[in-house]
Amino acid sequence: MRLGRVAVIGVGLIGGSFALALKQANACAQVVGAGRNRGNLEAALERGIIDAIAADAAAAARGADLVLVAAPVAQFEGIFRDIRESGALVTDAGSTKRDVVAAARRALGGAAARFVPGHPIAGAERSGALAATPDLFRGKRVILTPLAENSPKDVSLVEQAWQACGARLARMDPEEHDAVLAAVSHLPHLLAFALVHELAGRGNSAQLFALAAGGFRDFTRIASSHPEMWRDICLANRDRLLEEVKRYRLELDSITRVLEAGDGAALEKLFAEARAARSRWLNGEFEA
Amino acid sequence: MRLGRVAVIGVGLIGGSFALALKQANACAQVVGAGRNRGNLEAALERGIIDAIAADAAAAARGADLVLVAAPVAQFEGIFRDIRESGALVTDAGSTKRDVVAAARRALGGAAARFVPGHPIAGAERSGALAATPDLFRGKRVILTPLAENSPKDVSLVEQAWQACGARLARMDPEEHDAVLAAVSHLPHLLAFALVHELAGRGNSAQLFALAAGGFRDFTRIASSHPEMWRDICLANRDRLLEEVKRYRLELDSITRVLEAGDGAALEKLFAEARAARSRWLNGEFEA
Repeated sequence: MRLGRVAVIGVGLIGGSFALALKQANACAQVVGAGRNRGNLEAALERGIIDAIAADAAAAARGADLVLVAAPVAQFEGIFRDIRESGALVTDAGSTKRDVVAAARRALGGAAARFVPGHPIAGAERSGALAATPDLFRGKRVILTPLAENSPKDVSLVEQAWQACGARLARMDPEEHDAVLAAVSHLPHLLAFALVHELAGRGNSAQLFALAAGGFRDFTRIASSHPEMWRDICLANRDRLLEEVKRYRLELDSITRVLEAGDGAALEKLFAEARAARSRWLNGEFEA
Repeated sequence: MRLGRVAVIGVGLIGGSFALALKQANACAQVVGAGRNRGNLEAALERGIIDAIAADAAAAARGADLVLVAAPVAQFEGIFRDIRESGALVTDAGSTKRDVVAAARRALGGAAARFVPGHPIAGAERSGALAATPDLFRGKRVILTPLAENSPKDVSLVEQAWQACGARLARMDPEEHDAVLAAVSHLPHLLAFALVHELAGRGNSAQLFALAAGGFRDFTRIASSHPEMWRDICLANRDRLLEEVKRYRLELDSITRVLEAGDGAALEKLFAEARAARSRWLNGEFEA
């Protein structure tokens, strides 16, 4: 597969890495970038992440074989409206999918038939074009949640583009995607933010943090994630996330009862089961 | 400071690293090891972590200038009884301090005057003598919780031994130690175990784990910790840990209400405050 012109709307960590990976694989002739931050686009151009800066999203999409929308999700609906007339094949990198699909249907109308929603499960605390790397998606999952009206050819083309980046593809529907991600990504983020916020609000927080060590550092790493981005994810996936919080609270209730009873055998069994599951996961036993 | 004979009871990651660090600093003439696992002791001897294997804890402590008890905490009381007659200066590496002090008072009697309780806040998922490294404690905190009857000279000697290992010393009472560690260490471990255990028990756990990524990996790293060790820590510090779980649940309740209300501004503020606190911590602003 070799694409001609690829447009990236939002040349940050994800969009920039997509551009770099396609170029490294020689999978496209040219990448055009668009976005709100002119300085970021110029840095991307200078570093060879993109080959040209388009005046706006509409200009970037015009004549493109593939458009990746990798801006913050709150901007998606406006971007979809701007590129609606291009007729181009469009995909995205949003962390939630039900809301993105709804925005696409509202803003793209019939052109949504050429919108193949996607979510590369790769990220980092760093952001911006200068954080981009051609290896970001190597071995990582990309989930596509195709629409009923997508043509098999368009879906396949988006898959091939991600495969050229080294990613492993999966397909599910937007509902399933949002339910799964609520459990394994959105809930842990919320729990980490909650712990740091609770400790930071105490009178002796300086003493507490002074004695926090490596386990705390790793557990709370995701509490350094971008507040605005995570606000949007939590709101977009609110119903699913609330269900996950509820399940987690039931688990905590159950552990509390075990602790209160001083039931060492039950506690050890629970810890051992968790540790064993995590070992199986690290060993790749849950890979398709 | 240069010690003559140092005895290490339990030559695992902590005990072995203590021995290696003292030797590297030329802070002792000889390290004698004792423990239940003969194969582990022989490996430690072969690798030069210890210079001799004692027949038992009592033999190791006899004539020692300093004894470090670094076995699992459940064994402490028996070890204290075994070494009671040695008259040696004794310290320990247990993760909880109220229960260790109580065990020392029961088993050492008057000899507890020469027991200076301690807790090096350094660890790893790896264990055993072969995981030991002379740099484990470099820049790390060691908390001493001296007893009223300890002599200033003995406390100072234990401090100097840890300083020779590169550690930074702090003192507090056992109650304060257990309260602080419940918040910044024991609670996060419990929360991580709980998340993995809850997900592992679901019918679709394979699908969930297949889509878990780097954030999940770091958040749950401490859920790979040793089940028996953490059972003992949770039970020993049960009252404090239950208080922490209760506080955390109140924080989760509050976040749940914010989510239910769809209050994006409050959510973003909470996330931003957590992120800012964590940044200050990473920047070392909470160091004494």
